[in-house]
Amino acid sequence: MTQAAKSFRQTPLQDKAAAYFKDLQERICAAFEDLETEGATFECTPWTKTPEEQLKGGGEMRLMRGETFEKVGINFSKVYGEFTGKFAKEIPGTTKDDRSFWACGVSLVAHMKNPKVPAVHMNVRHIVTAEKAWFGGGADLTPSEEFAEDTTFFHACFKEACDSYSPDAYDKYKKWCDEYFFLPHRGEARGIGGIFFDYLEDRPEETFAFVQAVGEAFIKAFTTIVKRRMNIDFTEADKHTQKLKRGRYVEFNLLHDRGTRFGLMTGGNTEAILMSLPPEASW
Amino acid sequence: MTQAAKSFRQTPLQDKAAAYFKDLQERICAAFEDLETEGATFECTPWTKTPEEQLKGGGEMRLMRGETFEKVGINFSKVYGEFTGKFAKEIPGTTKDDRSFWACGVSLVAHMKNPKVPAVHMNVRHIVTAEKAWFGGGADLTPSEEFAEDTTFFHACFKEACDSYSPDAYDKYKKWCDEYFFLPHRGEARGIGGIFFDYLEDRPEETFAFVQAVGEAFIKAFTTIVKRRMNIDFTEADKHTQKLKRGRYVEFNLLHDRGTRFGLMTGGNTEAILMSLPPEASW
Repeated sequence: MTQAAKSFRQTPLQDKAAAYFKDLQERICAAFEDLETEGATFECTPWTKTPEEQLKGGGEMRLMRGETFEKVGINFSKVYGEFTGKFAKEIPGTTKDDRSFWACGVSLVAHMKNPKVPAVHMNVRHIVTAEKAWFGGGADLTPSEEFAEDTTFFHACFKEACDSYSPDAYDKYKKWCDEYFFLPHRGEARGIGGIFFDYLEDRPEETFAFVQAVGEAFIKAFTTIVKRRMNIDFTEADKHTQKLKRGRYVEFNLLHDRGTRFGLMTGGNTEAILMSLPPEASW
Repeated sequence: MTQAAKSFRQTPLQDKAAAYFKDLQERICAAFEDLETEGATFECTPWTKTPEEQLKGGGEMRLMRGETFEKVGINFSKVYGEFTGKFAKEIPGTTKDDRSFWACGVSLVAHMKNPKVPAVHMNVRHIVTAEKAWFGGGADLTPSEEFAEDTTFFHACFKEACDSYSPDAYDKYKKWCDEYFFLPHRGEARGIGGIFFDYLEDRPEETFAFVQAVGEAFIKAFTTIVKRRMNIDFTEADKHTQKLKRGRYVEFNLLHDRGTRFGLMTGGNTEAILMSLPPEASW
């Protein structure tokens, strides 16, 4: 199957996943705008790959700088094309003769003005290569001041989504998250964790339902936590602590995050990829 | 020659280079403290590698947060040991049977409070492996607002140092610098350049004299520029522009800088390696 053929013969599940991801992006944006006190709204920047570029497709970056969300980026993208030689080997289901892929997802990072509100990351994606199709995703929370109540609630929301999918999913994906979002050069975790999963290729319809449950759990978990904390007083010292924590976030994203490095090294959209970086960070 | 033997049989040139680098660190610190208006001084943190760690030796980190220098780190280090398998292949003069090395140098990054004063980086080093011994180093300037006079003067100082060494040195090392300090994912240079050189193994005594000339050129070039600009008025907008430029600096150091990645991936001193990161950066 050629890359061109694959691009145009999208399966019903690919269609449904893409439609869900786009709708999820829009609903999250609406929910976040509702939390803004001065009427801030998302700025939308659609982008398409030019025919000269290796990848085809496009997406939409949405960025808001407000009073509650100091900086939040929510990207939707649907791209397809062929992996180049050295990367193809790392991608499941890519064969010597067919390096085509299709990838669609939503990726989100929010950095909050009030340091009592944690930063958050969420991503859900569906990827199709010559011989495999899978879902991946996750969400993790990075408080600069931890509230046990928030940690417990965040994990409980995702546990509920996981339990509907498989009895061992939560333990497995929580552990995966802890292992992934770890800064070896600092010997410390990025935050208080969450869930992380990838390469889920069995039971595609049930897995898609799980991915949707993760998207919904994210909205519930994070908007609840923001409402709890956004109006608490904070000091300059709290803000400085938050900026130092954000410095670690930058270190993780640029030194270790596979998605960031993969995107930048393969000629992805730099602005979209680095939308995850905080508005202000300190070292 | 075993690693232990090499460590203890230091050549006279290694001794002289190490002594010069330590003295250079101290003289730069003194020159920078002289530029402080409120009496800020460097905080010195000596460090040694523990016997359990792969590397032996140690160094001294010096860090100052003042009124002129918002954050400046100057590290001296002298370490020796053996490269581990995967890195050994990348290092000139390392053989299958002898992966020992000795490395000594000074590394400096200064981020300035007044955005009219450029950030600067300087490094000089001497490295010895089983079959090779070489010098490397360089200096480059990163203004957030460029003054043509400073750019010209900075380059002139290093051209003078280069001309005393070899007629084609300046052109060659300036080009090397432009190529090295480039952010491919942004399609932009880190700053206005300077010089960069590595693997200089011929004429060791003349090369050491050149490296000393580079150290002296740095002191002259940068202290002159700081004095010119440190008292110019600036706006909040200038400061914001500086913080955005620093964001790019962080991107370069964490995504591309070979020294940073090499240090972190080989278990170097994280605090010393990441001393180069700015006090505050924005995206």
